[in-house]
Amino acid sequence: MEIKILKNILGANDQIAAKNRELMAKHEVFAVNIMASPGAGKTSVVLQTIRALKNKTRIGVIEGDIASSIDAETVAKEGIPVVQINTGGECHLESFQIQNALNNLPLPDIDLMLIENVGNLVCPAEFSIGEDLKVLIASVPEGDDKPYKYPLMFNTVDAIVLNKIDLLPYVKFDVDGFTKTVKTINPKVELFKVSCTTEEGIQPWAKWLLARMKSK
Amino acid sequence: MEIKILKNILGANDQIAAKNRELMAKHEVFAVNIMASPGAGKTSVVLQTIRALKNKTRIGVIEGDIASSIDAETVAKEGIPVVQINTGGECHLESFQIQNALNNLPLPDIDLMLIENVGNLVCPAEFSIGEDLKVLIASVPEGDDKPYKYPLMFNTVDAIVLNKIDLLPYVKFDVDGFTKTVKTINPKVELFKVSCTTEEGIQPWAKWLLARMKSK
Repeated sequence: MEIKILKNILGANDQIAAKNRELMAKHEVFAVNIMASPGAGKTSVVLQTIRALKNKTRIGVIEGDIASSIDAETVAKEGIPVVQINTGGECHLESFQIQNALNNLPLPDIDLMLIENVGNLVCPAEFSIGEDLKVLIASVPEGDDKPYKYPLMFNTVDAIVLNKIDLLPYVKFDVDGFTKTVKTINPKVELFKVSCTTEEGIQPWAKWLLARMKSK
Repeated sequence: MEIKILKNILGANDQIAAKNRELMAKHEVFAVNIMASPGAGKTSVVLQTIRALKNKTRIGVIEGDIASSIDAETVAKEGIPVVQINTGGECHLESFQIQNALNNLPLPDIDLMLIENVGNLVCPAEFSIGEDLKVLIASVPEGDDKPYKYPLMFNTVDAIVLNKIDLLPYVKFDVDGFTKTVKTINPKVELFKVSCTTEEGIQPWAKWLLARMKSK
């Protein structure tokens, strides 16, 4: 009984995700679902990606948070169309929320949609929202053991951006070990090492993202 | 219909939580539910707390993770009875898992039970597991805006341990602003500032925890 209901809920989410995908395809919008722990630097990576790419493509942003509009306000300062979703307690974005956000964004003027999910390494990995690409922002101070503990998230993404590499001198983090673990769990994943503070590594990440968008 | 089923699930969790509480009261075990983002340093705080208190009280540990037994192995090296729960995908601990863990621990030999929840700032806040105290480990590199984004977690806990203060010189974090926000959301909360690397602040935290345990 419970399993049946769970299936229905997931089915409904996937159906709306397919509609989101169809709507964005019609407008040639490439959507990126950005996931991470709280405080890994999703908004900072979004901002750096906007700065690296805003002269090359037209960007829109959807910000997901349980509460507050801090992130949307930060992004709006970049002059980018942005919608804030407040989930009001839910620990992940679902496709119906994205559908609502898409109805409030100028899709004909957007080529690249950056969607910042709720800060959580578990639940967002289970819900498709109609994205073309799933990206995980990991961060150095979280430690190099996270792939073992959150295998679904590390397995499900197309790219991992390891953020805060400027903190490597101050914390214990084995970059080679982390890379090996990640590649074992997810052999096809792309791994980028960046610092949003020093801007190191932002260009290769942004260049790859633009190429993926154009190759769709 | 869906709401009714959700109520049943929560009801069942609370019923088992009450049984856990009763069982631990019988054995005079004081239980602490330790919650945090992935990588905030739950295990490090558990280890430092063990080292600070193991000559003063008898400690047991329950480790919760989606997968892996890394944390339980680390704790076992301290010579402390420990059980690892693997939730297999679930984003939080529930009381039935604690019930199972309690059945596998020598309760007559334990006074203080440290329970490390799954790394997640959202879902664990919603589930009672039969604990006497809820503690949140926040960490400096996550940023000072987390109370706005995860209000239920910050509101629901009895104490907040702000970890990784040794990284304050290298990241943007307004300690006074964070303190003010936390006290606005949760006026009764106790706030401790610690570094598990330098051990700064561990003693006041451990002393307070022991006093809370003894005042029960």
